[in-house]
Amino acid sequence: MAADKIDTIVSLSKRRGFVYPCSEIYGGQRAAWDYGPLGVELKENLKRQWWRYMVTSREDVVGLDSSVILATEVWEASGHVATFTDPLTECTSCHKRFRADHLEEAYEEKHGRLPENGLTDLNCPNCGNKGTFTEPKNFSGLLATHLGPTQDSGSVAYLRPETAQGIFTNFLQVQTTSRKKPPFGIAQMGKSFRNEITPGNFIFRTREFEQMEMEYFVKPGEDEEAQEYWMQQRWNWYTGLGMREENMRWYEHPQEKLSHYSKRTADIEYRFQFGGSEWGELEGVANRTDYDLNAHSKASGANLTYLDQESGERYTPYVIEPAAGVGRAMLAFLLDAYTEDEAPNAKGVMEKRVVMRLDHRLAPVKAAVLPLSRNAQLSPKAKGLAADLRQNWNIEFDDAGAIGRRYRRQDEIGTPYCITVDFDTLEDNAVTVRERDTMKQERVSLDQIQGYLASRLIGC
Amino acid sequence: MAADKIDTIVSLSKRRGFVYPCSEIYGGQRAAWDYGPLGVELKENLKRQWWRYMVTSREDVVGLDSSVILATEVWEASGHVATFTDPLTECTSCHKRFRADHLEEAYEEKHGRLPENGLTDLNCPNCGNKGTFTEPKNFSGLLATHLGPTQDSGSVAYLRPETAQGIFTNFLQVQTTSRKKPPFGIAQMGKSFRNEITPGNFIFRTREFEQMEMEYFVKPGEDEEAQEYWMQQRWNWYTGLGMREENMRWYEHPQEKLSHYSKRTADIEYRFQFGGSEWGELEGVANRTDYDLNAHSKASGANLTYLDQESGERYTPYVIEPAAGVGRAMLAFLLDAYTEDEAPNAKGVMEKRVVMRLDHRLAPVKAAVLPLSRNAQLSPKAKGLAADLRQNWNIEFDDAGAIGRRYRRQDEIGTPYCITVDFDTLEDNAVTVRERDTMKQERVSLDQIQGYLASRLIGC
Repeated sequence: MAADKIDTIVSLSKRRGFVYPCSEIYGGQRAAWDYGPLGVELKENLKRQWWRYMVTSREDVVGLDSSVILATEVWEASGHVATFTDPLTECTSCHKRFRADHLEEAYEEKHGRLPENGLTDLNCPNCGNKGTFTEPKNFSGLLATHLGPTQDSGSVAYLRPETAQGIFTNFLQVQTTSRKKPPFGIAQMGKSFRNEITPGNFIFRTREFEQMEMEYFVKPGEDEEAQEYWMQQRWNWYTGLGMREENMRWYEHPQEKLSHYSKRTADIEYRFQFGGSEWGELEGVANRTDYDLNAHSKASGANLTYLDQESGERYTPYVIEPAAGVGRAMLAFLLDAYTEDEAPNAKGVMEKRVVMRLDHRLAPVKAAVLPLSRNAQLSPKAKGLAADLRQNWNIEFDDAGAIGRRYRRQDEIGTPYCITVDFDTLEDNAVTVRERDTMKQERVSLDQIQGYLASRLIGC
Repeated sequence: MAADKIDTIVSLSKRRGFVYPCSEIYGGQRAAWDYGPLGVELKENLKRQWWRYMVTSREDVVGLDSSVILATEVWEASGHVATFTDPLTECTSCHKRFRADHLEEAYEEKHGRLPENGLTDLNCPNCGNKGTFTEPKNFSGLLATHLGPTQDSGSVAYLRPETAQGIFTNFLQVQTTSRKKPPFGIAQMGKSFRNEITPGNFIFRTREFEQMEMEYFVKPGEDEEAQEYWMQQRWNWYTGLGMREENMRWYEHPQEKLSHYSKRTADIEYRFQFGGSEWGELEGVANRTDYDLNAHSKASGANLTYLDQESGERYTPYVIEPAAGVGRAMLAFLLDAYTEDEAPNAKGVMEKRVVMRLDHRLAPVKAAVLPLSRNAQLSPKAKGLAADLRQNWNIEFDDAGAIGRRYRRQDEIGTPYCITVDFDTLEDNAVTVRERDTMKQERVSLDQIQGYLASRLIGC
């Protein structure tokens, strides 16, 4: 079932318009994906939920949208130009490239310990040969480009590998103009780019990806408590949107493996069940200390400290960073929501049904309007209803095929409500509303349908 | 007033947190801007309004979110690699670089005709010398990067200069999975990148920018009517969000200046009043014909035609493209909303007031909660109210300074409602709501405040 389920999601995503392989008519762009009509709605819903939870519903967090291309000095000061590298190894037998650390971690997960002699103990996952790996070389994860008409070294610019640095470089501006005092946060959603050696596993690891990051600035000494708080908040965000706790766990980064800026990092992992590894990182909550603000203070000469007016104390804030990936969250919610159960077909015989039990707030389509049949009276009535509802929600209209088949289509994409316009509608001015999970049907008057949906689609 | 007004907006934007210069602590990144707490809310509101108007409120348009980095073949087939260039000239006296076409257009706007002898007739806008321009060279507007560990020509990739090509390459997938028939549209919002020679005028022209594009596919022969329809729709979108028609006009591209793919292009221009030019392009509505689908059919071998099942006719759809820039729209709405009038100060004397008359749907903050004074009873009451309202809208809480000054602050950022919690509130459980434009005040019971705002913030 494990790897099958991912395959099922990949296939359903393509077939129904959640996610397509990028540039497919040209044979595809390796490990790049485009979001189709349903995918873009699901993704936007997810981002909106994050923004509400992390920013607008809180007094102490404000938003930001900084550039993808920052001044090159930013990446020099942050350490990315020098140290944002991955250890690249190549199998001398089949010439496939791998990340050495990933190979060792896979070994560790299987055997409970690291390989004694490093890469020489490992078999190539591609060709199976042993001891064929080259000595790992550091390979930069930054994507570079050139601005301006000449390609000299002065014009080199990097695409950001994380949104966080745009927050640190704007710390002073945001703090001043929003008049916030620590503890307070600055949140940002946006694209980042990494020159990954081994992108893959569908939308889990791609070179171009969307992040949802928040940097929470606190007084030194209050950082550990703040990290516990945000770990709990982030866990609650996923479970609050319906993710099942049995598919989630915490992974605490061992001290010796922490990033150079981190005092403690804990990941929420999800049971993605990729072939070869059961769990994958969903989100990291890191204590970045005062590393970044200090680095930028030093390199730029700007004073990135905070002066507490009341106590007269001046300090460089510590930073707690919950950093999530949009693609990973979307994949996890899709895997988690995917269910197979049974429903009666037209003859009353039970048949397999695929239902995407997405939280209503995430579901890409909130309701589908289905005329019982294509008909000169039913169709305009149904179209009119769909047009009305569309002023408030994303609505589908479908009049093609048997009604049971149309229900299945909506179940498969997670539409919470199907609204059937039938011949009785012409008499009683009411419609049948079918709920996705229970398949229960209810007759609702047309003049109450807006309110009926509104009370069930709160927060959408 | 003209250029002053832009300066006023730039300065207000920085001071209040709409837009900051990018990487400012490092001396700034030329013509790049970051959106602060208010800017990101305004920008998201604008995008959401576009998406609702263009996608979810319509039956015939679906969304898409394709990658920034597409397969290189896409840009070869579209003609961008060969022809997406600008004519670059340099003043041999001061060594400043310009776009030759922009210099000629500025001359034409001033003199009503093009310079007789081309660039030799023109004075350098920087140093004033005449006849100092070099022969223009074609300069690629594409930003390039390299994917993978080696920088050979096989790994070169381009950052998209327009979102449109991601739509054309997915045409077949989207059409099939969404089961739409022409006329239908595919819409996309997202970042694009252009190696502009002369970025500038604040967020009007930047190397990194956000687009809102929609490609509307129609049967050949129905394209001219569709273009008229979308021109009207797009005009209505701006005016529907409060843009004043006296600041808008149509500019029809002359036939000889049309892009290679276009049969007709009409721009909505806005009276930006940049120094030197009164009007600037806000949005273009282009008839791209079947150029792009044909080009990709030919290059990829994919069949990008549409078969009309009913008539049995097969054709390559024509495309009408309304393409707007998020930064430009935001700048235009800010300029348009900026107003100076008068309001009484604490002593009843009339004083200048700056008010940003943004449509409620665009305003970054929907309401501000202001306790009359910092007080052990008023403050918690006001904070509680702000927390309640924050579940639905973006709300500010401000208890610093005189109430009149706090009103001014909210007026300046376009907050539609200020809600004052005063000592009477402790008795009558009501608050004073002040409306931004009229400055009228009304007493509203606390148990009705949610409904009061909801009925006035429809569509927010």
